Amino acid sequence: MKIFVINGPNRSGKTTLMKTMLGLREPEIYGADTLESINAELAGYCRTVGVQPEFFQSNSEGELIDFIHSARGNADGIVLNAGAYTHYSIAIRDAIAAVELPCVEVHLSNVHKREEFRHKSVLSAVCTGVICGFGKHVYRLAIDALNSI
Amino acid sequence: MKIFVINGPNRSGKTTLMKTMLGLREPEIYGADTLESINAELAGYCRTVGVQPEFFQSNSEGELIDFIHSARGNADGIVLNAGAYTHYSIAIRDAIAAVELPCVEVHLSNVHKREEFRHKSVLSAVCTGVICGFGKHVYRLAIDALNSI
Amino acid sequence: MKIFVINGPNRSGKTTLMKTMLGLREPEIYGADTLESINAELAGYCRTVGVQPEFFQSNSEGELIDFIHSARGNADGIVLNAGAYTHYSIAIRDAIAAVELPCVEVHLSNVHKREEFRHKSVLSAVCTGVICGFGKHVYRLAIDALNSI
Amino acid sequence: MKIFVINGPNRSGKTTLMKTMLGLREPEIYGADTLESINAELAGYCRTVGVQPEFFQSNSEGELIDFIHSARGNADGIVLNAGAYTHYSIAIRDAIAAVELPCVEVHLSNVHKREEFRHKSVLSAVCTGVICGFGKHVYRLAIDALNSI
Amino acid sequence: MKIFVINGPNRSGKTTLMKTMLGLREPEIYGADTLESINAELAGYCRTVGVQPEFFQSNSEGELIDFIHSARGNADGIVLNAGAYTHYSIAIRDAIAAVELPCVEVHLSNVHKREEFRHKSVLSAVCTGVICGFGKHVYRLAIDALNSI
Amino acid sequence: MKIFVINGPNRSGKTTLMKTMLGLREPEIYGADTLESINAELAGYCRTVGVQPEFFQSNSEGELIDFIHSARGNADGIVLNAGAYTHYSIAIRDAIAAVELPCVEVHLSNVHKREEFRHKSVLSAVCTGVICGFGKHVYRLAIDALNSI
Amino acid sequence: MKIFVINGPNRSGKTTLMKTMLGLREPEIYGADTLESINAELAGYCRTVGVQPEFFQSNSEGELIDFIHSARGNADGIVLNAGAYTHYSIAIRDAIAAVELPCVEVHLSNVHKREEFRHKSVLSAVCTGVICGFGKHVYRLAIDALNSI
Amino acid sequence: MKIFVINGPNRSGKTTLMKTMLGLREPEIYGADTLESINAELAGYCRTVGVQPEFFQSNSEGELIDFIHSARGNADGIVLNAGAYTHYSIAIRDAIAAVELPCVEVHLSNVHKREEFRHKSVLSAVCTGVICGFGKHVYRLAIDALNSI
Amino acid sequence: MKIFVINGPNRSGKTTLMKTMLGLREPEIYGADTLESINAELAGYCRTVGVQPEFFQSNSEGELIDFIHSARGNADGIVLNAGAYTHYSIAIRDAIAAVELPCVEVHLSNVHKREEFRHKSVLSAVCTGVICGFGKHVYRLAIDALNSI
Amino acid sequence: MKIFVINGPNRSGKTTLMKTMLGLREPEIYGADTLESINAELAGYCRTVGVQPEFFQSNSEGELIDFIHSARGNADGIVLNAGAYTHYSIAIRDAIAAVELPCVEVHLSNVHKREEFRHKSVLSAVCTGVICGFGKHVYRLAIDALNSI
Amino acid sequence: MKIFVINGPNRSGKTTLMKTMLGLREPEIYGADTLESINAELAGYCRTVGVQPEFFQSNSEGELIDFIHSARGNADGIVLNAGAYTHYSIAIRDAIAAVELPCVEVHLSNVHKREEFRHKSVLSAVCTGVICGFGKHVYRLAIDALNSI
Amino acid sequence: MKIFVINGPNRSGKTTLMKTMLGLREPEIYGADTLESINAELAGYCRTVGVQPEFFQSNSEGELIDFIHSARGNADGIVLNAGAYTHYSIAIRDAIAAVELPCVEVHLSNVHKREEFRHKSVLSAVCTGVICGFGKHVYRLAIDALNSI
Repeated sequence: MKIFVINGPNRSGKTTLMKTMLGLREPEIYGADTLESINAELAGYCRTVGVQPEFFQSNSEGELIDFIHSARGNADGIVLNAGAYTHYSIAIRDAIAAVELPCVEVHLSNVHKREEFRHKSVLSAVCTGVICGFGKHVYRLAIDALNSI
Repeated sequence: MKIFVINGPNRSGKTTLMKTMLGLREPEIYGADTLESINAELAGYCRTVGVQPEFFQSNSEGELIDFIHSARGNADGIVLNAGAYTHYSIAIRDAIAAVELPCVEVHLSNVHKREEFRHKSVLSAVCTGVICGFGKHVYRLAIDALNSI
Repeated sequence: MKIFVINGPNRSGKTTLMKTMLGLREPEIYGADTLESINAELAGYCRTVGVQPEFFQSNSEGELIDFIHSARGNADGIVLNAGAYTHYSIAIRDAIAAVELPCVEVHLSNVHKREEFRHKSVLSAVCTGVICGFGKHVYRLAIDALNSI
Repeated sequence: MKIFVINGPNRSGKTTLMKTMLGLREPEIYGADTLESINAELAGYCRTVGVQPEFFQSNSEGELIDFIHSARGNADGIVLNAGAYTHYSIAIRDAIAAVELPCVEVHLSNVHKREEFRHKSVLSAVCTGVICGFGKHVYRLAIDALNSI
Repeated sequence: MKIFVINGPNRSGKTTLMKTMLGLREPEIYGADTLESINAELAGYCRTVGVQPEFFQSNSEGELIDFIHSARGNADGIVLNAGAYTHYSIAIRDAIAAVELPCVEVHLSNVHKREEFRHKSVLSAVCTGVICGFGKHVYRLAIDALNSI
Repeated sequence: MKIFVINGPNRSGKTTLMKTMLGLREPEIYGADTLESINAELAGYCRTVGVQPEFFQSNSEGELIDFIHSARGNADGIVLNAGAYTHYSIAIRDAIAAVELPCVEVHLSNVHKREEFRHKSVLSAVCTGVICGFGKHVYRLAIDALNSI
Repeated sequence: MKIFVINGPNRSGKTTLMKTMLGLREPEIYGADTLESINAELAGYCRTVGVQPEFFQSNSEGELIDFIHSARGNADGIVLNAGAYTHYSIAIRDAIAAVELPCVEVHLSNVHKREEFRHKSVLSAVCTGVICGFGKHVYRLAIDALNSI
Repeated sequence: MKIFVINGPNRSGKTTLMKTMLGLREPEIYGADTLESINAELAGYCRTVGVQPEFFQSNSEGELIDFIHSARGNADGIVLNAGAYTHYSIAIRDAIAAVELPCVEVHLSNVHKREEFRHKSVLSAVCTGVICGFGKHVYRLAIDALNSI
Repeated sequence: MKIFVINGPNRSGKTTLMKTMLGLREPEIYGADTLESINAELAGYCRTVGVQPEFFQSNSEGELIDFIHSARGNADGIVLNAGAYTHYSIAIRDAIAAVELPCVEVHLSNVHKREEFRHKSVLSAVCTGVICGFGKHVYRLAIDALNSI
Repeated sequence: MKIFVINGPNRSGKTTLMKTMLGLREPEIYGADTLESINAELAGYCRTVGVQPEFFQSNSEGELIDFIHSARGNADGIVLNAGAYTHYSIAIRDAIAAVELPCVEVHLSNVHKREEFRHKSVLSAVCTGVICGFGKHVYRLAIDALNSI
Repeated sequence: MKIFVINGPNRSGKTTLMKTMLGLREPEIYGADTLESINAELAGYCRTVGVQPEFFQSNSEGELIDFIHSARGNADGIVLNAGAYTHYSIAIRDAIAAVELPCVEVHLSNVHKREEFRHKSVLSAVCTGVICGFGKHVYRLAIDALNSI
Repeated sequence: MKIFVINGPNRSGKTTLMKTMLGLREPEIYGADTLESINAELAGYCRTVGVQPEFFQSNSEGELIDFIHSARGNADGIVLNAGAYTHYSIAIRDAIAAVELPCVEVHLSNVHKREEFRHKSVLSAVCTGVICGFGKHVYRLAIDALNSI
């Protein structure tokens, strides 16, 4: 089973930069994590459950769409943390619908505790399901979800 | 670790009754499941991960609140599928906030694929996180989430 | 033919209490009616058209859901005056949808002549049809409607 | 007792034309009905209950208003299926209010199961009551309602 | 003078549970109060002003309606802290209107300082008046208000 | 100076019919007036100020548009009481704009004291001005206004 | 007959200042008018129709309220051009309602041709009627209206 | 191939009348066109592409519906410029849906450059497609579109 | 304890003027009261509870702000009936917030029974609490509330 | 005449991918088309009408803006299918406005039959016109439109 | 160059009073500033850049309008911190538009970080530009802006 | 002090292209400016105040985010003219928030005089302050603002 793990804008970079973005209430707990360390840990988990992950991150809406398109024929499912694009990128929504693959929308923070405009996702209706609020664990739970359905 | 697994209105009962309510697109797959069979399967999984579950279902908003209150001091976390109350029961929201325990909001179907009024949850902002769209697997994923955070 | 005739909150009780709730413009006409007298009169009518009615009233959303569930297998149709729950109880809506029986939504008063918030019913879309504004006669018309379709 | 039975736009004509407009989910059942056959059947029923019906149909808002005006002094009640005008014709609303006669708003389909814009009626607040969702039977039920109140 | 003092959902229970719910900014001040101690203190005050209080608390909307109904003929006024039901229970609103007794809506916290959805009360329009924001003192002020009008 | 005085739907007819429509608070005062008597009185006034009126009334939106079109080249101004069409007939709005003549929108009642939907006029923005609330006098004031500007 | 003619903010002052505020499309026509010249002309007209006017202008909401209060017992009617306060001063609305005198709301320009926020008047519902769009003539028409009703 | 070319209100008449309605920014270019000249030119074009057009214009909503109904069995497609009715005539919408023929919604001007209320069409959802903004050429393009699909 | 008792626009003046403004349903009961008599009665009550009141009334938003500012250092609390300014004066809101004193918002009538626009207060969120609906008694209750907290 | 034919996100790629995106109701008809085949066919048509097309597709908003900019001085018109960007890319809107060239907005499907959010285009107001709903033929019609105006 | 520097309600007064109003996040930094000290410092700056300032502050909307009017002929530009009036005083907006002078809207705090209702300014559209968020420096920047344009 | 000066979409390029975009009312004044000339002039100003600017422009949301990220550790502040992205790019908002540097949002035109959709900025709440409406001078004022705070 091949799964694309895709992260959107402002999800890369230095630790402190990431903390700010996640809206987590306890940065001291997750502070040591970077996207790289999270991906590395997740890659390890994937091996234990027989999943082959491929990681991608971009701040560009167009590149994210390109990569989602490439999943067609090359992946069995997608784990997508689209960051801020979650709230307005109908173009990414269309890309997800086009590839016709199981896709799990994830968010590290519980977006419903944050600003009003983060409560609305234009992606959810074309995804298989949504998992949010459990920090880095959402990626692993999404892998498990794709493995179960 | 003790976890309360709570189901709200229209979640009990006969198989066909349940299928209608879940909004799942492939009832033929989950059609054999009842709340009882799902709970039984989940109880088995809990044993394997060292969790002690307690199950509760009610169609009554007041009884659900009563049971959530009883979690204080008696449970380490809550898995809550509040059904239709998800969309308007501020009283249940207040109950969750009052017990100050980790709580995972779950839905078997991806509510964002259904009627507009099901896209809004008044509970999410006081829960730890949300998992929806993976059928009966959302309960197991919620147990895992509570185990991880 | 077995039909459940269900009345929701603030529909029981003393005559004057009822008058207030119905929003009828001519209470002096219907003032002598109580839920009991209406039900009795309706029971008489049912006998003349070969319908076997079963009456239920509750102020509790949960009990109304329980009773609607019990219609499955035990009734051929439902006449439902859900009172104020009409306007917000998605849980009752889900119960109606779940039992997959013909259901007629009735209101004694013409709700469209009353407060703005009474113009919206969350139940109508899952009912067979709606009858309102004819006082106690709505119950008999609903029985006839169920007999016709 | 004299009752005007008025049908608005897109309610006349050929069978298949009508089926499309009614939004009924089972056209195969009502497919054999035309406005003419419905009116004929209703005229028969009226005779059995001592009501003298007068039928009118027009696609023109102005002609409908003219005919409603003519009810004053010439009829004891009105059964009105205003079709699409239901949703925006304040002019027809004013006409109904002006004649000061009991008026029953009817719709063959349950408009609440259809497009959002069909859920709002500008006529209901000036009618005696509303009956919808029972196909051609709504006309007969409306006659009964006018006979009862 | 007999007055029913009614508390709604999440108003009972342990001290810390209550603190969370009230939204008070200085829990250290009111922290020692429970519903029991507040009621006891209020009972004492009532004796000094010649009022006979009867206390009731329930998390169930239906039970609250039942109890409000029972006020008819048994009480001269009602003090009602409906908690979260304040914001959506049209059924409780109808019950208050039906009993035709003076009713004072109270809230311990100033609801206008809290979440937007708590600013709207569906009950206020059928109550005599509203008192909020003075902690446990709102009950005593409500007793005085009922005594004055 | 030639002026078209145009009345829309529900403005013709018998005295009592008219009273209902006008929303005037003191029908006993204006009760003796019919559109015919108002027009006759206005014709008399026009002679005293050197204006040649032409009267028209229709319940049909299309006929009103036809008559407004005919004003081009045949009239120097229009006095228009469009009745309920005021609130939604963009077609009449376009007709007024097309004839490029001074047009005064009038209403016998003060529409702002009536239902919310009567507060909005789709015609005002293409008229020269608006006069409402003075009963039959609005026609004479409108003639004066056209004479002044 | 004594009539108070009241002008609100930005209605006084130099010619060019006024032109800007009125939103008139043809300032070259009314450009020579100032509030003083308009009032003087209106005073002359009032003499011819036996009305005794009293003029007042203020940029202060409070002073306008004070002056409206003073009309009680001292005037038979009010002509009010409240300028921008028209759109938000509920305090002026309450003052008009309190004095219980006929009051005509006037605007020199047709406010419905201007910005959206000028289409809403919070005063209209408590005035006898509204006249707008005829430049300085609105004052004279309002005097006539008060004389007629 | 037989095509009905239907024009709604304010589309007939004199040149200057038309210019005003179209909202075109360069009336000097299209100023010489009338509905008659446009229809004549279009009739010529139709001959070159083997289409048999039938022209109709009315200011009456009811007549437009009547004519649309007549297309059933008599035409292979409809080109419809419904003018202002585009924005609110659900009755015309229902007529288009009822005849079950390809229908092209056209507008001479680009309605999206005009007033906000012209941006919404209640007809588009039941038409095959929409063409707007190219002046008289929209009719020819619509003929071509019907010829292609 | 020194308390400023402040009344806003349309709260002064003659008896009948006041009755109109208060929206009380039983003016015959409170009809004998003027602001002066209410203040006098309240002054008497204040003496019995050891409070030193200072009264102020103005129709001017600016003067109300000035007086609220003067409370800083000169008063221990404020009782404020801001009348119509309650609904839009963010400037008064800022003044209340700036003086950092306990402030009780009062209304003689139950504003929630009146027009929709009176249901919203821009002041409540910066006040300690709100008391409304008990006629002149709201002032005394507010004094008691300030004495209690 | 040189025309840029620009396609936005999710418009490239494999046949089946495209079908999903277009929302066409009869994919079996257009199923054989890819963007490449559509472009090729359009190139052929352009030759017959003397137009020189230049094709461009990108999933990136920035690249689409860059290419639109390049039209200035290099093209006589633009045909733009902006896909999902149609609904929110104000940046593309600004680019179209900046190049000051005739631009035709096209959509293969009739966007008004699809999700509510696809009914709104932020581009239409700065385009010359809009053509939608005729499948691949919209490109040819747009070429014709640019050739005509 | 003569510039009027105008401050609105709640901008005068004692240091601590001011701190509260500004919404600054670091009152300890600006805590020593009063309107007087800010004005004094600004007067010094004005001398260095050849600007002659005139300072004014009032809590009264009417006085602010009076003073803005006085700028006509007496000033070359205006710096306006209208405080809370920014959000609703259309009367001040009209005054700014009337004097036809460059006007810079300033706010010490970044209003977009504060309550939702502070995000909307009714003044911005008639000002030359807006500067906010830099504490007392906004006044100097506004002087520079007026000097530059 | 190192400051990044960032310009978003449609801000580069030829003079006339720029004029269109800025919405300035007097293009003849600023017409000679290009982004290059503005940057050159600003670079000169920066030298005089001891600031080291770095310029960047892109039409791509992703590249703008990348460059904002690069400010962390490399700049002391940001001047950002995000063009159309201002109104919807939550991704750029998150980038600004993430780098935790002072950031000044600037616009050459006064966006509040333009289309409604340009009045809303999703960036302002995470910027230090906003400056708009002074043409090219906004950049220099922003440099000064960053220098002052």
